[in-house]
Amino acid sequence: MSKPQFDTVALIGIGLIGSSISHGIRRSGLARRITGYAKTEATRNTARRLGLVDEAFNSAADAAEGADLVILCVPVGACGAVAAEMAGKLKQGAILTDVGSVKGAVVRDVGPNVPEGVHFVPGHPIAGTEHSGPESGFAELFDGRWCILTPPSGADDGAVERLKAFWEALGSHVEIMAPDHHDMVLAITSHVPHLIAFNIVNTAAHLERVTASEVIKFSAGGFRDFTRIAASDPTMWRDVFLNNKSAVIEMLGRFTEDLTALQRAIRFDDGDMLFRLFGEARELRRGIIQAGQDTAAADFGRPHGPAQAAASVPSKKAGGG
Amino acid sequence: MSKPQFDTVALIGIGLIGSSISHGIRRSGLARRITGYAKTEATRNTARRLGLVDEAFNSAADAAEGADLVILCVPVGACGAVAAEMAGKLKQGAILTDVGSVKGAVVRDVGPNVPEGVHFVPGHPIAGTEHSGPESGFAELFDGRWCILTPPSGADDGAVERLKAFWEALGSHVEIMAPDHHDMVLAITSHVPHLIAFNIVNTAAHLERVTASEVIKFSAGGFRDFTRIAASDPTMWRDVFLNNKSAVIEMLGRFTEDLTALQRAIRFDDGDMLFRLFGEARELRRGIIQAGQDTAAADFGRPHGPAQAAASVPSKKAGGG
Repeated sequence: MSKPQFDTVALIGIGLIGSSISHGIRRSGLARRITGYAKTEATRNTARRLGLVDEAFNSAADAAEGADLVILCVPVGACGAVAAEMAGKLKQGAILTDVGSVKGAVVRDVGPNVPEGVHFVPGHPIAGTEHSGPESGFAELFDGRWCILTPPSGADDGAVERLKAFWEALGSHVEIMAPDHHDMVLAITSHVPHLIAFNIVNTAAHLERVTASEVIKFSAGGFRDFTRIAASDPTMWRDVFLNNKSAVIEMLGRFTEDLTALQRAIRFDDGDMLFRLFGEARELRRGIIQAGQDTAAADFGRPHGPAQAAASVPSKKAGGG
Repeated sequence: MSKPQFDTVALIGIGLIGSSISHGIRRSGLARRITGYAKTEATRNTARRLGLVDEAFNSAADAAEGADLVILCVPVGACGAVAAEMAGKLKQGAILTDVGSVKGAVVRDVGPNVPEGVHFVPGHPIAGTEHSGPESGFAELFDGRWCILTPPSGADDGAVERLKAFWEALGSHVEIMAPDHHDMVLAITSHVPHLIAFNIVNTAAHLERVTASEVIKFSAGGFRDFTRIAASDPTMWRDVFLNNKSAVIEMLGRFTEDLTALQRAIRFDDGDMLFRLFGEARELRRGIIQAGQDTAAADFGRPHGPAQAAASVPSKKAGGG
């Protein structure tokens, strides 16, 4: 157990990320007290039952009142309104942060609602699963992953350092970058991959000559890897795309351009080009494994035989939005 | 141990699939003897050292001579030439099959080389990992997965039944379908997903404003799921695309059409359409888990905490092509 870094942490939203932060705080004793806000009574009850919060509120402002660290864990599209609602209750000297997958829009929507004397330092932990809801969180989610902070110019250095130390205590590496650069990086490493996954799953579901049951039965050929990320929370992802429009559209343009070139190589039997590009893709995969951001375990990460039982330990039920 | 189903099985090619078949045969005692052909001395030596074959040959014809079941486990583009080379040595009454990811082209290339009295029954196990080479195989690869057989019209029923029983003994479910339908189903469940994965990895690698090291560091946001399948064997995949051209191009056309519609919805802030499509994709994912073709384990299948050590048991080093 570390020494508590904060007296009270307020989790504004208790889904996959909010609940995982709670587990991480408890694991290392990072706060004396956790308050939480959730929109629905069902989520508040679940949060109480699981001990995710010491007190659950039906008002974000009440949950945030007096907290030393306030973390917005609601979909990106809701951050502005929630911040406006809380503004009058935030404690002087408190740190306000978020976990949204888009940073430019959060700065735009939340920034104007932050009172003088409150330190606003946006953040984004690059970690998640395809499950959602308060029961899907676990303390290890952030271990070895990266968390990006995008402090505005003129941000209080002490506040940035305290938030950095908090994420490190949760197990993360921390990187600082500008909001626009964050949005460009995440467009290619996360947003476009999710869009493509959602898209191919829907393409497959609407074919005339291949049935849905065939798609499901024979999904082990590669398709199932896409369905995994396509099972992520629809509300969260709708907000991501609406709030990172220009970077996503730019990256999609590049993707489509490259895909058209590959399609042309197939049409004109250019095996050399295909072989070369496929080999290059393999190299980048090696870099990801070496960087500890994935394992080399075979069969697309699906354990076989003796490992199967053990690997299902961290399994959680697929939650609602 | 079952009673041997075949006296001698010849593995023509000893990569991921060939070596996994060998492990599966040994696990259940399905053959008295296994012979093998590999192009390189290094692979032959590895196959001998690991006990994958009782005898390794540098000629496919010699490996196939006298075998009761001959399994082509070479890339699709090599099947025709290898079959022609073996034709004179195949035993009367033998079953000749393959494991290629494309079936129309295999029928086209191999069919004319099959002597009278040899039963040609093409096959395709829908199972694999991103690793290749003789050291990457394991007996459990086919457990619970599907194997598709595409016997030509007029094929010997007894031969089809014996091959079906063989795959079932390896742990697979077996489905019979026409080669053209197979190629259409696999285009959407396997070939296009791989092409998209190869493509986005290369798009990401050639951006000016996002560095390769950023792509690697922040890949946990979804991108790493694509790199996993993009690490698959370049030779095998080049041959797949060149030999299933029309189905792949048709499915790519549908994919691009749907992606363009999604891009347009983002551009014009059509959040309702995005939410609806994302929700539908999530439903199909549930079907795949219910059908046992993937697990619901969280974090994109990457185990955390206590499961981590156990889950790395079946891990194999990334092999060469």
